[in-house]
Amino acid sequence: MSRHPSSEEVFKVHQGGKIEIKSKFEVKTKDDLALVYTPGVALVCEEIARNPAKVFDLTIKKNTIAVFTDGSAILGLGDLGPEAALPVMEGKAMLFKALANVDAFPICIKGKTVDEIVNIAQALEPTFGGFNLEDISAPRCFEIEKKLQELVNVPVFHDDQHGTAVVTLAALYNSLRLTGKKIDQIKVVVSGSGAAGIACSKIFLSAGVKNLIICDRIGAIYAGRSEGMNSAKEEFALISNPNHEKGSLKEALVGADLFMGLSGPNLIDLNDIKKMAAEPIIFAMSNPIPEIDPEIATPNVAVMATGRSDFPNQINNVLCFPGFFRGLLDSKAKKVTEDMKLAAAKAIASLISDKELSKEYIIPDALDERVAPAVANAIKQVLLSTV
Amino acid sequence: MSRHPSSEEVFKVHQGGKIEIKSKFEVKTKDDLALVYTPGVALVCEEIARNPAKVFDLTIKKNTIAVFTDGSAILGLGDLGPEAALPVMEGKAMLFKALANVDAFPICIKGKTVDEIVNIAQALEPTFGGFNLEDISAPRCFEIEKKLQELVNVPVFHDDQHGTAVVTLAALYNSLRLTGKKIDQIKVVVSGSGAAGIACSKIFLSAGVKNLIICDRIGAIYAGRSEGMNSAKEEFALISNPNHEKGSLKEALVGADLFMGLSGPNLIDLNDIKKMAAEPIIFAMSNPIPEIDPEIATPNVAVMATGRSDFPNQINNVLCFPGFFRGLLDSKAKKVTEDMKLAAAKAIASLISDKELSKEYIIPDALDERVAPAVANAIKQVLLSTV
Repeated sequence: MSRHPSSEEVFKVHQGGKIEIKSKFEVKTKDDLALVYTPGVALVCEEIARNPAKVFDLTIKKNTIAVFTDGSAILGLGDLGPEAALPVMEGKAMLFKALANVDAFPICIKGKTVDEIVNIAQALEPTFGGFNLEDISAPRCFEIEKKLQELVNVPVFHDDQHGTAVVTLAALYNSLRLTGKKIDQIKVVVSGSGAAGIACSKIFLSAGVKNLIICDRIGAIYAGRSEGMNSAKEEFALISNPNHEKGSLKEALVGADLFMGLSGPNLIDLNDIKKMAAEPIIFAMSNPIPEIDPEIATPNVAVMATGRSDFPNQINNVLCFPGFFRGLLDSKAKKVTEDMKLAAAKAIASLISDKELSKEYIIPDALDERVAPAVANAIKQVLLSTV
Repeated sequence: MSRHPSSEEVFKVHQGGKIEIKSKFEVKTKDDLALVYTPGVALVCEEIARNPAKVFDLTIKKNTIAVFTDGSAILGLGDLGPEAALPVMEGKAMLFKALANVDAFPICIKGKTVDEIVNIAQALEPTFGGFNLEDISAPRCFEIEKKLQELVNVPVFHDDQHGTAVVTLAALYNSLRLTGKKIDQIKVVVSGSGAAGIACSKIFLSAGVKNLIICDRIGAIYAGRSEGMNSAKEEFALISNPNHEKGSLKEALVGADLFMGLSGPNLIDLNDIKKMAAEPIIFAMSNPIPEIDPEIATPNVAVMATGRSDFPNQINNVLCFPGFFRGLLDSKAKKVTEDMKLAAAKAIASLISDKELSKEYIIPDALDERVAPAVANAIKQVLLSTV
């Protein structure tokens, strides 16, 4: 459990930025200079020109990714622009390094259209071994991720979608272990059709959930709904909500086994929980204020998880992204696959033994050092098994 | 003097790249996480959104620049592409850090046209406090530098032009001190009309040289010449070669006080030197093979300088760029001015006392630790005096 830092403390640690560039060797003599710079370096340039794949061995590309954003959806704060996104990207870079020894550099860009953003990222491919997209608003983020991955030969991972999805699925796996419910028999109601809501829903379907309904501000999304749709919702309407339920979020919740909130504060209450199936599971991930007050929900549910560090069961992307990229870089993966995400979720969930598993411990701690190596290993195993 | 490193040594130090990203603080506890990442970081994002100038205090932008290239003119190797440029940019980043504590990150991009390259660099402005352009082919580099500086509010410095120009001017200042020649009375013949040749010529004119002739492969460039011209040469023809000398490089050299080579190996010989004015000065900077063999030239000239570390008087950009950006960042400069370049050259030259100054010591050693602070200070003084 963490305390809320004071504004004074926060501004103090942010002075001049939180990361720096460091040489791996000291340059003290002319001999050092001749080795790491001219004339020595010319041999390496020529080697890479002859054999382009060598850039993955002989340069920072081997271990360096871009934490890439346009600042259009920063945390829960909205479109504050690329400069305001920089402190978040720096924080992310710190976590990449601390937890998985991945060198991550913030790239906060000015660019409005999908094509502009994709072009800029594509142009940066020579430098980076992967792209971690971050805090880009939906639905643009879906298209940017898809187009970019088609154009580059390094993996593209949109953390707000896939990081959240992987960790949420890990929480689901362990909630099912705890309650004895079966993944193909549960009813899941999702609140939120942004990047995270869509991505979590997709991975749940990949993992075997059959009955899943996404609700937006209007209510349940179903095939044929005309109001307030977009391409992502249209696509999703066709593969979810098999019983064509219509109506409000609260109506959809009747008989649900899992409520997953990726939307906004205080959307449901105790009455809604009481209408759910027995042993209800709540993932209320709106931050900082969850969809229902954890103090109220917890005594009345089988599992209560949030996005907050001051309650048990924090669903935190940091459980996924460092190890995920460690695995991608180590195995020189060219893209992110659905199998990798499922394997990463299983790896995270399985770190908690049957004996340890409890209502208050369905997901490892955000800084649990076992997590990143387990996730990295899971990614590598998927790649080995598909070679 | 440095020895030539073996290929084995060179490849060994390049494994996995030469720089890394490092956190300034450890993230070990949930309290650390709350301070550098969510929820604490949101305060900083909001502060920057309210007051955009704060990005220069509260993020890496304060001390971080891009070492930016398209890989179209790598060292003397030519257009090997952006991947092959990465080891050079990493080496540069190491020197920025070691000599001036500037955080420099390599940005090697795919992009062919001037406008593509300018657009990509411009889009990256939110992250960087400056752009060090590098290894971009002439004449594209001139236009890219100019257009980019018009579009961004951080300084743009093309090292191949301005770094070389500043250090060469420092070498000229001390050669004049040594020989007692006057800057407005010397005849300068430049071999090479690439980025460096044009930039050195420009700064010489700014510094007071009156009679300067640039020669390309065809010979002297003069107003009205029709063959083998481009926009940079056209522009230069109008401001140089006041006596309209035509003919070959060797013809131009008759009576010259200074030969400055930024072109290719073995272009002049002892006979050419003998036709120059008394106490001739030779800067033969083609690398690795100078325009004339230093062993042959040295006994017959007043000053012999090269680009090589294994001869005396190495004209090395590293004397300029680290301190130059240190000064730019510290004074929050928005662009690079001609005055700054002249001041930097004077600062470098004046580090050598009258007593120390000799034929073999007209320029400080590449790794002389006094240089970067002196250059940084000179830049700051220029900015203070223009406020």
